[in-house]
Amino acid sequence: MRDFSADHRWLSINTATVRKQRGQDWPLPQILDACAARGIRAVSPWRDQVAAAGLDAVARQLRALGLELSGYCRGGMFTYADAAGRQASRDDNRRALDEACTLGAPCLVLVVGGLPGALAGRPAHRDLGAARAQVTEGIAALLEDARERRMPLAIEPLHPMYAGDRACINTLEQALDVCDMLDPRRSGALGVAVDAYHVWWDPKLAAQIERAGQERLLALHVCDWLVPTADLLNDRGMMGDGVIDLPRLRGWVEAQGFAGYSEVEIFSAANWWQRDGGEVLDTCIERHRRCV
Amino acid sequence: MRDFSADHRWLSINTATVRKQRGQDWPLPQILDACAARGIRAVSPWRDQVAAAGLDAVARQLRALGLELSGYCRGGMFTYADAAGRQASRDDNRRALDEACTLGAPCLVLVVGGLPGALAGRPAHRDLGAARAQVTEGIAALLEDARERRMPLAIEPLHPMYAGDRACINTLEQALDVCDMLDPRRSGALGVAVDAYHVWWDPKLAAQIERAGQERLLALHVCDWLVPTADLLNDRGMMGDGVIDLPRLRGWVEAQGFAGYSEVEIFSAANWWQRDGGEVLDTCIERHRRCV
Repeated sequence: MRDFSADHRWLSINTATVRKQRGQDWPLPQILDACAARGIRAVSPWRDQVAAAGLDAVARQLRALGLELSGYCRGGMFTYADAAGRQASRDDNRRALDEACTLGAPCLVLVVGGLPGALAGRPAHRDLGAARAQVTEGIAALLEDARERRMPLAIEPLHPMYAGDRACINTLEQALDVCDMLDPRRSGALGVAVDAYHVWWDPKLAAQIERAGQERLLALHVCDWLVPTADLLNDRGMMGDGVIDLPRLRGWVEAQGFAGYSEVEIFSAANWWQRDGGEVLDTCIERHRRCV
Repeated sequence: MRDFSADHRWLSINTATVRKQRGQDWPLPQILDACAARGIRAVSPWRDQVAAAGLDAVARQLRALGLELSGYCRGGMFTYADAAGRQASRDDNRRALDEACTLGAPCLVLVVGGLPGALAGRPAHRDLGAARAQVTEGIAALLEDARERRMPLAIEPLHPMYAGDRACINTLEQALDVCDMLDPRRSGALGVAVDAYHVWWDPKLAAQIERAGQERLLALHVCDWLVPTADLLNDRGMMGDGVIDLPRLRGWVEAQGFAGYSEVEIFSAANWWQRDGGEVLDTCIERHRRCV
């Protein structure tokens, strides 16, 4: 297992971690500058942040700063209520793929969607099995485009508390079942993003990480689970402040040969989003060395 | 599958559903009277409610009203930080067993505990695997007492969002693995409580219900998952108000031969606990007929 204590060369910042500080959007170009100024070598930006700054401008800035991507957030949302929704998802995912290519991302992260309409508070139905079938179909279709572009797809299983409205792939086992179905040869075109927040509770986690193996382990996200947790979406903890045994999890992932970035992704409306962005980045660096 | 539309003979009320209405405790004797007055035939009371009313008095009242129990809430909390904690858990679970016998419960429901100390905000460590080992050990020890008393133990897998602080058994598969280890003969002494709120998201749910079979299916709890959900603990929905396909779930359980009560358990600080208790019970009856 790599020693993270001496430097932060394997730290990546998911830019949602500092997207809005004290009520003010922190524009992506400034986030990138602040990361580079601290010797952070990689980021994972969100599509809306990239769109606001301009795709080509962001690509140029990344090159100028020597910043890599650890992933691109995000494609997915494959579930739909009608044919128009299906086509819109298809088109949007192709655009996400193209953006990921322009930015030189190592993978496009997929948050697959829950029951259609549920995120807007109007679920079209209660058939989670049907939603899951749409997800498999959607990934299968996108995988063809992804292979053409040589852009790997990383299915991110989301915590079961998001099954209804955000993602109906909820365990690593389930994500790997989809990978095995659609890419049985383990070509590298399809894998998973392991986010500690979503999977830490899973009694089968170690076994499924081993099952994934190096070819399927495309990204590692870290933060912490707070007790108590005040909000289902935006009360993630800084590494070290919660109950996830992050070094153990990282050990399992690295035992399979994973040698990529450890990407910090923290949604924290009441705490970290209320601080100065530079302070948050400095804390990420310190905790990355000590707690991951 | 049984037809619930014509009457509510298979409705049970978990008494936490109406434990505190509009800021006032609703004493258990009044809850029992209100249930009986509506033709509700079964309840599942909580230990603190029973203790407040007096164990023997509650047992007498149940008999006088002709009310059955669908379960007794609850034993468990097997995880500990030291030997004193281990002994305290052991003693308390034996008392819970004895109470369940006095009340004529069909099973003692087990919420197994999370990381020791976490529920009080001071987790003793981050080793979920060690906590799970303590749970298995605790259930094994309690099972001997339970067999002597002929009181079945029902392990309730809790939603993964409670893994840290309330219960580190988080899937039906995991609960059944414990059952298979401790009661391989499927004697009926050890099984599971299937609570729709905790397990509805699980892609392996149908298969694991089939695996459980009639001998292991000791209780069925229903409520609904709201989108959005505002609170991790106390924002459960009334059946029909959320996204759980309750008839499908009940169909799977009944296909195994389950013929017991459908127990309504709703923790709802902002909605149902703010209403008149009688109104809540009436709504449970109506929704039980129409949505379960």
